Amino acid sequence: MIQLSKLPFKTMKTAPSGSDNRGTSLLLQAGLIRQTMAGVYSYTTLGLEVLRHIEVMVREEMNAAGCFETLMPSLSPRELWDTTGRWDTIDVMFHVPAANDKEYGLNSTHEEIVVPLVSEFIQSYKDLPSCVYQIQNKFRNEKRAKSGLLRGREFIMKDAYSFHANDEDFKDFYTKMTEVYMRVFHRLGLGEDTVIAVADGGTFTDKYSHEFQVRLGIWEDEIYRDPETGTCYNKEVAPAICGTVFHNGDEKKEELKEVLWEGIIGVYPLAELLWIPVEKTTKTILFEDETTRVIAVAIRGDYDINEIKLRKLIWCSRLSLLSEERVKEVTGSVVGYAGMIGLSPEVFQVWDDSCEGRVNFEMWANKENYHSVNVNFGRDIALPEKFYDVKEVQPGDKNPESGEVYEVFKASEVGNIFPLETKFTKAFGVKYLDENNAEQIPVMGCYGIGVSRLMGVMAEYFAGENGINWPEGIAPATHYIIVMGEENIQIAMKLVSELEATGSTCIIDDRMGKKFGFGQKAMDAELLGIPNRIVISPKTIEAGGYELETRDGETKIISYPV
Amino acid sequence: MIQLSKLPFKTMKTAPSGSDNRGTSLLLQAGLIRQTMAGVYSYTTLGLEVLRHIEVMVREEMNAAGCFETLMPSLSPRELWDTTGRWDTIDVMFHVPAANDKEYGLNSTHEEIVVPLVSEFIQSYKDLPSCVYQIQNKFRNEKRAKSGLLRGREFIMKDAYSFHANDEDFKDFYTKMTEVYMRVFHRLGLGEDTVIAVADGGTFTDKYSHEFQVRLGIWEDEIYRDPETGTCYNKEVAPAICGTVFHNGDEKKEELKEVLWEGIIGVYPLAELLWIPVEKTTKTILFEDETTRVIAVAIRGDYDINEIKLRKLIWCSRLSLLSEERVKEVTGSVVGYAGMIGLSPEVFQVWDDSCEGRVNFEMWANKENYHSVNVNFGRDIALPEKFYDVKEVQPGDKNPESGEVYEVFKASEVGNIFPLETKFTKAFGVKYLDENNAEQIPVMGCYGIGVSRLMGVMAEYFAGENGINWPEGIAPATHYIIVMGEENIQIAMKLVSELEATGSTCIIDDRMGKKFGFGQKAMDAELLGIPNRIVISPKTIEAGGYELETRDGETKIISYPV
Repeated sequence: MIQLSKLPFKTMKTAPSGSDNRGTSLLLQAGLIRQTMAGVYSYTTLGLEVLRHIEVMVREEMNAAGCFETLMPSLSPRELWDTTGRWDTIDVMFHVPAANDKEYGLNSTHEEIVVPLVSEFIQSYKDLPSCVYQIQNKFRNEKRAKSGLLRGREFIMKDAYSFHANDEDFKDFYTKMTEVYMRVFHRLGLGEDTVIAVADGGTFTDKYSHEFQVRLGIWEDEIYRDPETGTCYNKEVAPAICGTVFHNGDEKKEELKEVLWEGIIGVYPLAELLWIPVEKTTKTILFEDETTRVIAVAIRGDYDINEIKLRKLIWCSRLSLLSEERVKEVTGSVVGYAGMIGLSPEVFQVWDDSCEGRVNFEMWANKENYHSVNVNFGRDIALPEKFYDVKEVQPGDKNPESGEVYEVFKASEVGNIFPLETKFTKAFGVKYLDENNAEQIPVMGCYGIGVSRLMGVMAEYFAGENGINWPEGIAPATHYIIVMGEENIQIAMKLVSELEATGSTCIIDDRMGKKFGFGQKAMDAELLGIPNRIVISPKTIEAGGYELETRDGETKIISYPV
Repeated sequence: MIQLSKLPFKTMKTAPSGSDNRGTSLLLQAGLIRQTMAGVYSYTTLGLEVLRHIEVMVREEMNAAGCFETLMPSLSPRELWDTTGRWDTIDVMFHVPAANDKEYGLNSTHEEIVVPLVSEFIQSYKDLPSCVYQIQNKFRNEKRAKSGLLRGREFIMKDAYSFHANDEDFKDFYTKMTEVYMRVFHRLGLGEDTVIAVADGGTFTDKYSHEFQVRLGIWEDEIYRDPETGTCYNKEVAPAICGTVFHNGDEKKEELKEVLWEGIIGVYPLAELLWIPVEKTTKTILFEDETTRVIAVAIRGDYDINEIKLRKLIWCSRLSLLSEERVKEVTGSVVGYAGMIGLSPEVFQVWDDSCEGRVNFEMWANKENYHSVNVNFGRDIALPEKFYDVKEVQPGDKNPESGEVYEVFKASEVGNIFPLETKFTKAFGVKYLDENNAEQIPVMGCYGIGVSRLMGVMAEYFAGENGINWPEGIAPATHYIIVMGEENIQIAMKLVSELEATGSTCIIDDRMGKKFGFGQKAMDAELLGIPNRIVISPKTIEAGGYELETRDGETKIISYPV
């Protein structure tokens, strides 16, 4: 029982300004959280109740799935991250200088900790499969933290790690985990608006990962859904063919020219000046991979290049823009004027399929301020053997398999699962003996649910006009008891004992004095979003008991002996 | 229920070497914890159960005392610590470089976070008193981490912070907290060996703090107990008079001499060379305080100076050894040869009372390698008006009030409480309006219990010959069920359901195969320290049920229908 007359935290009359979403405003107004710094929050007593209720649901489902809870640390020695090569590649990991000239990582994920921990106990195929998890803090050195609990520098995650004898066993488990996750989100009341989207594997895997995304009008992800198959993609990996292929009709090939235009910025002003549709403009970007190979990518001017797609296409692990010096070497011009015409055959050339089929198009001329116009394949430049999809998808684009235009919506990620293959077990030299006594490397997967982020997503999802309509199992309490009149506190306390004995949890609003009239108390009950409201007042006592109002708005007097 | 055939963690046949205490060895051998790096541990599934059980007991008592749980972050902006001036004075706080040229603290304590959090809600005396707490990670940049869970770089603490209208109210609460803490330690089974000791206030307060210390033969603190009053002191602050005052008898004053001895290190070799008892040797140490005042302290050669006592005596906040340069200026000699004779009256001179009453004693002569011998008060140097206690206490010393020789024992700290006065509320400008509408500054206290440390202390305290005899409410489970024979697993499972329905928690040892004979299982039950052991085997089934062995060694067959 929480007694509001004693609780050191209070609600606010109006929502504070400055939040970029309503959920955060309501969490602040209800006094459930407070910002300690951008992306770092404190949970007050009632906020912590909400957080714990989410944790309990996640824990129950993980345990039921045969996973074992553990608690790993937030600090780890740099050496573990050097073993996998991720000390420098996880750009959001805090590096903490420590005594004795050491450096610690402030963990943003726990593969480097869990593998040494669990592998000690894996000797034979009989020790597999296994899955451990924890509910623990994670840290991210974000340049910009925003959206309240949604993108934090410190947040709480449930992260699980599974170990398997082979890929088949892993795949079964991965599918099972997908179901476990959907069950969690259904129990939290988000299930109907949660989709599974294909996403990038980040520093975890070269393959795709899968995200659990809740359709929600606020920041952060854009989901592209194929209306035919129902498959969803995070914008960052959605395969795409141009929704707006440029039809030249029977336009005849004009003469190739080089034209000078100084100081033009952007393809739209350029298209206007050249009297051509923007679809005839072309961007050429020069990259370098980890082997110093130069890659030139051409894409229609109104598209951007998606580096994740490009990396997967040309099978490289690191991609950077070509240095100024090397641009000069390759194009003969300073940075910013690269085009495909005249590049050495040693440069690996990639054409996005948005460029396909065009005649009389434009590109830079590898010459400062000069554009080539009326460029044509097969005359000015060889027709590429193949066009590729290296574009950042745009609304209106189509899924290549179904040919249907994508449905696009905003969503917030609440979970993410990754196939890790043998990346981490191999790095740490983990081996087990199979049925034939042969050494094998276990296959791994990892599975995250953003626990504190869920609190933020749910606040937004369940935001009502005057408060957060938390589901019954998640609300700070099941019952909010408004007591009017000092003389009725004892009756209310007795009722609380009875309710709590049968599993309910109560907030008793026993605040007295002229500041705390019925209106104020009723507003706070709604703001905190407690599903059942009880009123004990002289009027209800006279009517023979107390008044109960449930979430659906139904009100009745329950007779109660006083 | 934990099924050992599925649990990814195992016990070890023998205790691992390398631990400096038996408790840690047993925790490791039982597979309850694993070291991720020195001072940083992971908790396995069963270890986490122990930790959670300790947490629950602490939480129950805190809630019962009217404190409200919260959850504050691990990261905090440097600015908060600059406000109180502790960014540089807490030498164990990790300073974390962050994006945008920021620096964050990785909190070793939470005053700087809780005060801004709670003060928003303190407007009037009616909002006081209040007390909030959390169970959360703490971080310390320790040079040397040791003793397993006892001195960690990352550990779990319960820390509470109280706010009061005045000192009187604070004192009542502080006393009440002392009782709450003793109740916690009694419930954990440590109460009879837990004492409250006066200790230093560190960066928290200029006054003393109070530590809860469990008598235990392992690292770390030495407690000095006055046998008459029962008052206990941490060695660092125990007031002391020499237990071995040097009696000169009627020795006559000899002639003052300066003698040359090169290369003598230590007072014992010196005493031997000079043919004098070590009690006649003297150390003189030169300090400088924050105002650049020079302080010379003389102490008997067989004692050390206690800087905490010295700081409190001369009322200074920072004390450092005098620089080489200034030593030369003050003594006319290089560092290492300071004595009291001939020092300028501008130097503040402190004599420890261990020097009182001596004749013909030795000190350095403020001249390289030269000792003054046969020094006498009132002839060679003025008799100090007063002698002080600035010594590090030693076994054999007496309490100044009772005059009794201290009882000395080793102990491990499990809790610590501090009066904070208005140090932090003043720094953050916190004010409230009293009954007369006048602005006042709230008085604070803080109260810590080392939750993960308690797990280490309890492992040591309850260490038995073959395992840790955890108290019933703390053990990883209440029942350990040994199943012999695959065919009996179903019966065991049914029994587990029945036991857990009435609040018991079970570990079922359903491991089969020749590695898992009865002996192995019985050893693991004892190693894990589960208070009740059940055996279900063909033999017990034949006898009509299962065998129950309780902690006291009593064994009986309970009839159970199969």
